[in-house]
Amino acid sequence: MENRYDIAIIGSGPAGLSAAINARIRNKNIILFGYKDLSNKLVKASKINNYLGFYDITGEQLKNNFQKHIEKLNINIINERINEIYSMGDYFSLMVNEKCYEARSIIIATGIEYTKPIKGEDEFLGRGVGYCATCDAPLYRDKTVTVIGYNKEAEEEANYVSELASKLYYIPMYEENYNLRKDIVVIKDKPLEILGDNKVGKLKLKSKEIYTDGVFVLKDSISPAQLVPGLLMEEGHIKVDRSMKTNIKGCFAAGDCVGKPYQYMKAAGEGLIAALSAVTYIDINKIY
Amino acid sequence: MENRYDIAIIGSGPAGLSAAINARIRNKNIILFGYKDLSNKLVKASKINNYLGFYDITGEQLKNNFQKHIEKLNINIINERINEIYSMGDYFSLMVNEKCYEARSIIIATGIEYTKPIKGEDEFLGRGVGYCATCDAPLYRDKTVTVIGYNKEAEEEANYVSELASKLYYIPMYEENYNLRKDIVVIKDKPLEILGDNKVGKLKLKSKEIYTDGVFVLKDSISPAQLVPGLLMEEGHIKVDRSMKTNIKGCFAAGDCVGKPYQYMKAAGEGLIAALSAVTYIDINKIY
Repeated sequence: MENRYDIAIIGSGPAGLSAAINARIRNKNIILFGYKDLSNKLVKASKINNYLGFYDITGEQLKNNFQKHIEKLNINIINERINEIYSMGDYFSLMVNEKCYEARSIIIATGIEYTKPIKGEDEFLGRGVGYCATCDAPLYRDKTVTVIGYNKEAEEEANYVSELASKLYYIPMYEENYNLRKDIVVIKDKPLEILGDNKVGKLKLKSKEIYTDGVFVLKDSISPAQLVPGLLMEEGHIKVDRSMKTNIKGCFAAGDCVGKPYQYMKAAGEGLIAALSAVTYIDINKIY
Repeated sequence: MENRYDIAIIGSGPAGLSAAINARIRNKNIILFGYKDLSNKLVKASKINNYLGFYDITGEQLKNNFQKHIEKLNINIINERINEIYSMGDYFSLMVNEKCYEARSIIIATGIEYTKPIKGEDEFLGRGVGYCATCDAPLYRDKTVTVIGYNKEAEEEANYVSELASKLYYIPMYEENYNLRKDIVVIKDKPLEILGDNKVGKLKLKSKEIYTDGVFVLKDSISPAQLVPGLLMEEGHIKVDRSMKTNIKGCFAAGDCVGKPYQYMKAAGEGLIAALSAVTYIDINKIY
């Protein structure tokens, strides 16, 4: 299959990058999903003293070193948002809106979700609350939908859903110029609670309430268990062994998403281990 | 106690250095044992491509970056050889020939022993074969002793033992000018097998056999289980959990000595985890 990669890496922080360079050096055909700026968290770090080899460096400078490193190895970052990943036995399907990628193994390096869920979010998940607007859009044809967007990428999803929905509220959790369709109603307010009986009925904001049939919460990253159905978690982190293996065959994980301490060096070390484990997995299960 | 450190780190490769910088940044009183040149293995590496942030760097260059980093944090390396470490309950005793250091917690980062044991070495260990000449010297008063030295440090031990022994053979496993007492007999030959009945009787070399009561094999590093009696090993590596904790309270480990892959980035990541675990251990068990 032409489109089937050896290893798909999800996340472009230190864990994902370290996984990518190691897999590439081992001659694996990889695809790396992430952001052009690598990692927001890294870029914003004002001073880093504990990444061995660099003393008194800013996050921006360290990011530039990482960027140079992957460029030298001709590693590109695909700036697409994976909605869901399904294990198909001996390969994985990675869903990106209408597109689909395939990979024989995957490395989850999506970091840790710092955004607290809104009151009612967990309770109504799957009953009006969703994390992938483009996936669930058909359910909301001619209905009222609210999109709570944590980043600019959410705007695109909101635009898509608004074509089907009868009404779309967009609640931006960031300051910027919004690139939204004219019929979308932008509300600058703080979401406090999702309410309803059996399913979502309304959203309580700081200054008012709005009636809505669905609420999409589009955060920087969704939880790994939602990204990969069936993935075993333990106390909020992906459960891995010391070889960074998860409970799903061919699925590895590294970095903040597998546990504390949330540190760049630890993430990079784990990314290396995950990559070499994935390489071994592929080589052992080679199809001749 | 004046001489009692918070954390003693044994080993100055990437794992030990990463542990040292992280413990120092957390304001712990540390002592780091190792070599001025940090790590022989690192210095000799001709090209390193997979340490995230540095592309196409020599081992020597990476070592220089590491050295700069620890210097900026005023971390010194104590170039002394730890013979044995005993857990005393709430602290550890680190024996260095006649000296003794104390630390509330320890981090083992001694790398992996690449030197294969000589035939008979394991069999006669404790029955004429030893790894610490200065420790066992009194047992060999007026006897014949052979020292197989893998590095210059072994010469000092040989000199010390020769003051007690009636005869001392020195078999250097390296090329250099030897700084040995005049009565020591240097034999440039390859040791093949240690022989004896109940205890060591002779040593078979490639070109001859010598009668000897004891054989000291002084390698770059001794096995962790010999360094720390009671330390649990698993398939040749120190057994640790994901927080780098060993089976001994207050004893942590990181780097090649805890398992594959033998990679700098993995070692540095684990060194960080071990340091933060040791810091937590000390803070929880604080004596007020």
